[in-house]
Amino acid sequence: MAAFQSKELRRSYGFDEVAIVPGDTTTNPDQTNIDLKIDSLTFSIPIIASAMDAVTDVNSAILMSKLGGLGVLNLEGVQTRYSNPQEVLAEITRAPESKVTPLLQKVYSQPIKENLVGERVESIKKAGAVCAVAAAPANTKRLAPLAAEAGADVLFVQSTVTSARHISKSYRGLIFEELVKSLSIPVVVGNCVSYSACLELMRTGISGVLVGVGPGAACTTREVLGVGVPQITATIDCAAARDAYQRDSGRYIPIITDGGFRKGGDICKAFAAGTDAVMVGSVFAQAKEAPGAGYHWGMSHPHPALPRGTRIKVGTTGTLEQILFGPTSVTDGSQNLIGALRTAMGVCGVSNIREMHQVEMVIAPAITTEGKSWQLASP
Amino acid sequence: MAAFQSKELRRSYGFDEVAIVPGDTTTNPDQTNIDLKIDSLTFSIPIIASAMDAVTDVNSAILMSKLGGLGVLNLEGVQTRYSNPQEVLAEITRAPESKVTPLLQKVYSQPIKENLVGERVESIKKAGAVCAVAAAPANTKRLAPLAAEAGADVLFVQSTVTSARHISKSYRGLIFEELVKSLSIPVVVGNCVSYSACLELMRTGISGVLVGVGPGAACTTREVLGVGVPQITATIDCAAARDAYQRDSGRYIPIITDGGFRKGGDICKAFAAGTDAVMVGSVFAQAKEAPGAGYHWGMSHPHPALPRGTRIKVGTTGTLEQILFGPTSVTDGSQNLIGALRTAMGVCGVSNIREMHQVEMVIAPAITTEGKSWQLASP
Amino acid sequence: MAAFQSKELRRSYGFDEVAIVPGDTTTNPDQTNIDLKIDSLTFSIPIIASAMDAVTDVNSAILMSKLGGLGVLNLEGVQTRYSNPQEVLAEITRAPESKVTPLLQKVYSQPIKENLVGERVESIKKAGAVCAVAAAPANTKRLAPLAAEAGADVLFVQSTVTSARHISKSYRGLIFEELVKSLSIPVVVGNCVSYSACLELMRTGISGVLVGVGPGAACTTREVLGVGVPQITATIDCAAARDAYQRDSGRYIPIITDGGFRKGGDICKAFAAGTDAVMVGSVFAQAKEAPGAGYHWGMSHPHPALPRGTRIKVGTTGTLEQILFGPTSVTDGSQNLIGALRTAMGVCGVSNIREMHQVEMVIAPAITTEGKSWQLASP
Amino acid sequence: MAAFQSKELRRSYGFDEVAIVPGDTTTNPDQTNIDLKIDSLTFSIPIIASAMDAVTDVNSAILMSKLGGLGVLNLEGVQTRYSNPQEVLAEITRAPESKVTPLLQKVYSQPIKENLVGERVESIKKAGAVCAVAAAPANTKRLAPLAAEAGADVLFVQSTVTSARHISKSYRGLIFEELVKSLSIPVVVGNCVSYSACLELMRTGISGVLVGVGPGAACTTREVLGVGVPQITATIDCAAARDAYQRDSGRYIPIITDGGFRKGGDICKAFAAGTDAVMVGSVFAQAKEAPGAGYHWGMSHPHPALPRGTRIKVGTTGTLEQILFGPTSVTDGSQNLIGALRTAMGVCGVSNIREMHQVEMVIAPAITTEGKSWQLASP
Repeated sequence: MAAFQSKELRRSYGFDEVAIVPGDTTTNPDQTNIDLKIDSLTFSIPIIASAMDAVTDVNSAILMSKLGGLGVLNLEGVQTRYSNPQEVLAEITRAPESKVTPLLQKVYSQPIKENLVGERVESIKKAGAVCAVAAAPANTKRLAPLAAEAGADVLFVQSTVTSARHISKSYRGLIFEELVKSLSIPVVVGNCVSYSACLELMRTGISGVLVGVGPGAACTTREVLGVGVPQITATIDCAAARDAYQRDSGRYIPIITDGGFRKGGDICKAFAAGTDAVMVGSVFAQAKEAPGAGYHWGMSHPHPALPRGTRIKVGTTGTLEQILFGPTSVTDGSQNLIGALRTAMGVCGVSNIREMHQVEMVIAPAITTEGKSWQLASP
Repeated sequence: MAAFQSKELRRSYGFDEVAIVPGDTTTNPDQTNIDLKIDSLTFSIPIIASAMDAVTDVNSAILMSKLGGLGVLNLEGVQTRYSNPQEVLAEITRAPESKVTPLLQKVYSQPIKENLVGERVESIKKAGAVCAVAAAPANTKRLAPLAAEAGADVLFVQSTVTSARHISKSYRGLIFEELVKSLSIPVVVGNCVSYSACLELMRTGISGVLVGVGPGAACTTREVLGVGVPQITATIDCAAARDAYQRDSGRYIPIITDGGFRKGGDICKAFAAGTDAVMVGSVFAQAKEAPGAGYHWGMSHPHPALPRGTRIKVGTTGTLEQILFGPTSVTDGSQNLIGALRTAMGVCGVSNIREMHQVEMVIAPAITTEGKSWQLASP
Repeated sequence: MAAFQSKELRRSYGFDEVAIVPGDTTTNPDQTNIDLKIDSLTFSIPIIASAMDAVTDVNSAILMSKLGGLGVLNLEGVQTRYSNPQEVLAEITRAPESKVTPLLQKVYSQPIKENLVGERVESIKKAGAVCAVAAAPANTKRLAPLAAEAGADVLFVQSTVTSARHISKSYRGLIFEELVKSLSIPVVVGNCVSYSACLELMRTGISGVLVGVGPGAACTTREVLGVGVPQITATIDCAAARDAYQRDSGRYIPIITDGGFRKGGDICKAFAAGTDAVMVGSVFAQAKEAPGAGYHWGMSHPHPALPRGTRIKVGTTGTLEQILFGPTSVTDGSQNLIGALRTAMGVCGVSNIREMHQVEMVIAPAITTEGKSWQLASP
Repeated sequence: MAAFQSKELRRSYGFDEVAIVPGDTTTNPDQTNIDLKIDSLTFSIPIIASAMDAVTDVNSAILMSKLGGLGVLNLEGVQTRYSNPQEVLAEITRAPESKVTPLLQKVYSQPIKENLVGERVESIKKAGAVCAVAAAPANTKRLAPLAAEAGADVLFVQSTVTSARHISKSYRGLIFEELVKSLSIPVVVGNCVSYSACLELMRTGISGVLVGVGPGAACTTREVLGVGVPQITATIDCAAARDAYQRDSGRYIPIITDGGFRKGGDICKAFAAGTDAVMVGSVFAQAKEAPGAGYHWGMSHPHPALPRGTRIKVGTTGTLEQILFGPTSVTDGSQNLIGALRTAMGVCGVSNIREMHQVEMVIAPAITTEGKSWQLASP
């Protein structure tokens, strides 16, 4: 109708707006293979715990590894700023609502202690676990070698938005081609949400890409900056980049959808959209073993002038093992995430993650409280 | 806009998003024919009560049959696990909210007593009623012959998602072609939601297909697994499969839209979308004669590791006869379902169900409380 | 994506989903002409009060006429069933919530007294007002001649859905071609919502068409029957039928969008969608002079077996004159409907209703409480 | 599907429905240039405070100018109707809810005192600030020369909808070509929302166009008149007009998106949609220095017969400087608007506003309370 040329907008979709269509065949859930490979590392479950202080510390990283997944220790959180992180964590979880943001701003303005980087990595390795660490691009050149030297197995370079080319007049940005060559361990980079940004990152020689800007429960990036792409579309687009890159280069670089998951169904949908793994924050902050003790916060965004994270109460619902594997008596999909994934694969008739990428999804109206909760609609 | 190839998503629709367009002619409601035929059985109303423990027991199955419809007795529920099901039902409905899921897990872990299968069927037949029974695919080979032998008239093979080909290394799945040949009674199979899955099921020689994954009020499949297709689209697609199969084979296999109905309007829309019958759960759980005594639960999903059903309070609103035929003084569409269907057919100017399949529907915004409830919007 | 043929659904729109685009020129509101012509009758404002017992009685019909519009007296309501309608109205408005539907069912089961038809018409005519009356198709042959003889100026034949051809084996339906020829007064018929149904009605020789099925505040047709088309789409489609009929026949038959209006903006949108007049219920039930005394109910749907109307509390907000012309100090658009229409026409740069039909509208997200009500979103 | 010709509706979008896609490169926020030029005036930040009594008085206009932006003094508000505006402001903010609209109707019916026009302008100029004033078209010929003579730097001619050609039989409308020639200062005109209306306004020789009808928090135009276009679409369309006009004429006329902003993200999106500046009301009414003292109202719409504005409580959240530049500890995006804009530009990899116009946006589901607020969704 518009007879003039104007900016066009593409429709994007989040978890709540899509649903997986069951297959024409079905398979047994226990015959599904859900392995995740990052470079030469293989994990028996494709679930990674976020590099957030309320989710991953040394203990929970060890536990995640033993359960077949991976926990990522943030090298810029309380674990490396404080020799006694427990005390700081307790201070954060006990603070009254009105004082949390200033407290987080203060806590995260303490300098990182370089000696703690090695100490934390060694504690994880000593337990026989796979050790993953995370740093922001600006601190990677300084912190990554320390972690690698101490035995870290994989490095996550992560900020709200990370691109292959950062333009700055004041300093020379991180060059991923150089980083990859200088380190002997695989490098996973993120976050990004578009086909072209993901493709450019893959071309730098990295070993994985984190997908997702703005979806997390403890993140207000979309409100504050207006920036973000819902996770289903972000995953579909980055999966297309991965497949295009594989066609061109022969290399298969896994993508990891990061953030916004609230229940098993969301995770299943991310795989159906094309992801190779999921990075989970809030749901793991609910684990009995989580350092956040029932709270969760976006510790990567306590920006002194423009904070974009907030502390939220998530409660404690079960052990990490229950959340991953059940058994459970909750019926809302927040526990037995792996059981849910395998069962969804079964009703779709697929036996591995690559096949799961091909299942059909439909755009479906969100299930509203009004639509499902009979008690509210009925006498 | 996207210049790359990526996964496409089709839009799907649920009951609340569509509305029926009245016709260019109108007819008298009392001149409409709404017969349902399953194989050689004919029912005067196309409404079937769900194979759920809160909905159908021996008594309500008899009553449904006398009223012209059909109630399906679940062969894996309390009726066949307990010789005194009333006591177990009372235990479930009296349990406090927090203890329901573990209780359901315990109740449904009791073994099925094969002798009770025949007893229940005989009780229904003795009353002169048509007897329908349901079993999951895994138990069908064992239970179906017992029920058929005792006189059951029709068998429903039903699980969350059932396909024509189940792939398993550990056991040989149910082959519908063989089942149909081995039994002398018609077999109705489900559930499925897509054109191709429905078509494959019809080609096995069965006599009916149940349509619907994830829509029921007592079901959390979509939250837990991310799997499901809204009922209007599922019905439209499966109706297309039925019509394609009829063109190819000459056989007309009825489809039965199962679950998600909350009021008469939903049922009318399912017929306009192409269904031949509807299977109703929650609304019948509200009947005075319902075994659930004002409660409803998804007894087919008390999975020990990954439960996907929950007990909900639905209340008791009237007799089964009132719910089906009125008269009523409720104005929300939860009673006189048959009157509603005939009246809708009248304003569409159609005189039978096949004609009702052809009426026009529009995608219409859901009627919100804000939009309709004047009291809330006004001083 | 769907490779098979299946039923298609067209998107439809209601008031809350569209907005009028201002014009490239603007005009003075007081220079707009908003006359409505029905056959040889001309009204200075294109607003008609519904044929509902809570809205129109003899007094309010007289008042509407004096204010330049039209009130339609229902010949099947309390005014013709009771010689003392005030008492019955009082009984309805005083009944407790739980007893309203049975009471309405009882009240409207009393027979219509034919002598009261003439009496009511004469009372309206005696006051010098234009007199409009309404009857359902089934009673038209009996009641219309009585009203016409007593001096009624225009007849509305109205039911939930009325078509040009009603198919019945038990009786001979109302033939509009015959009705129009047998009466000397113009006949307005409704309700309908589609292009083809509207076109067929116009071809019978009638003088106006009522547009709208299911949108009214006191109506639950869409919930109960699933039938209805949102008013913007219904109006656009019927306006297309009117224009097509005018091209073919040279006759311009006005359409009247009936029901669902909550504020001035809704009325402006109906004209932008193509209507020639609006029929208003709930908003006029809020008038000081309304017979409903702060309540409104769908007296045409107290069906004994399948009621589709309910009594709602609307309150009393001002005089009929204020609601139509202001002045007012309410800012929600529920008063000064004519001022709103003229102002909207002014910002669109149009000077009459036919030009208003041509203004651009966009599909716009509904304004939610969250979006507009700062108090709720802010500390 | 519709086989007939009928009115078509174009989809439009508001702030909550879109999101910005991060870029393939990133830049340093502190290297972004966000200058705004209106004719020969240059502002270091592209944010303008609304010409509303709760937002801009002499003091806040001076402060906005010192902070690099612009505050617009309304020449038809309390500042020019009363020699003691503080008293009147206090009366408005103290009035009980039920009496506000009549009070506003009374307050704004007082005549404008011409001598106060010059006095207010001089007070602003005396402080060394850039002075902008606003008048409605009807009063522009009388008030604009007084303000220009007193030293005003820029004139805003603003009403709900302003077009290049106002058609009236009773008086000769304002001709912008003549106004521009008669005044020595730049003229900014609004509001408009469509491509063609914006293009026509630009062709009159004016220096800026205000974009937006109906979006403001204190405005009920869309409810009352049904008129309005959501701000993202309005901005995209008017930006297309600006670019077309530049191609034709060589002149670049900035557009200013006016109203509806609730947080930094909204502002970022307006720039991504193509605006050159934003005019902010409610958010600035929350400043400690705001004349509204925690309240906001649409003082341009206290129409005596058809009011379309209402007083809302917005609270006081920080100083104007904090709202513009931080630092802050609120995480909802209502403070440090400039920091948010620069950060969004950084993650998009753009270094000036013209480049920001080119970034990709997607249509994204609104972030609902349900979707983000973990506390509500979880035990």
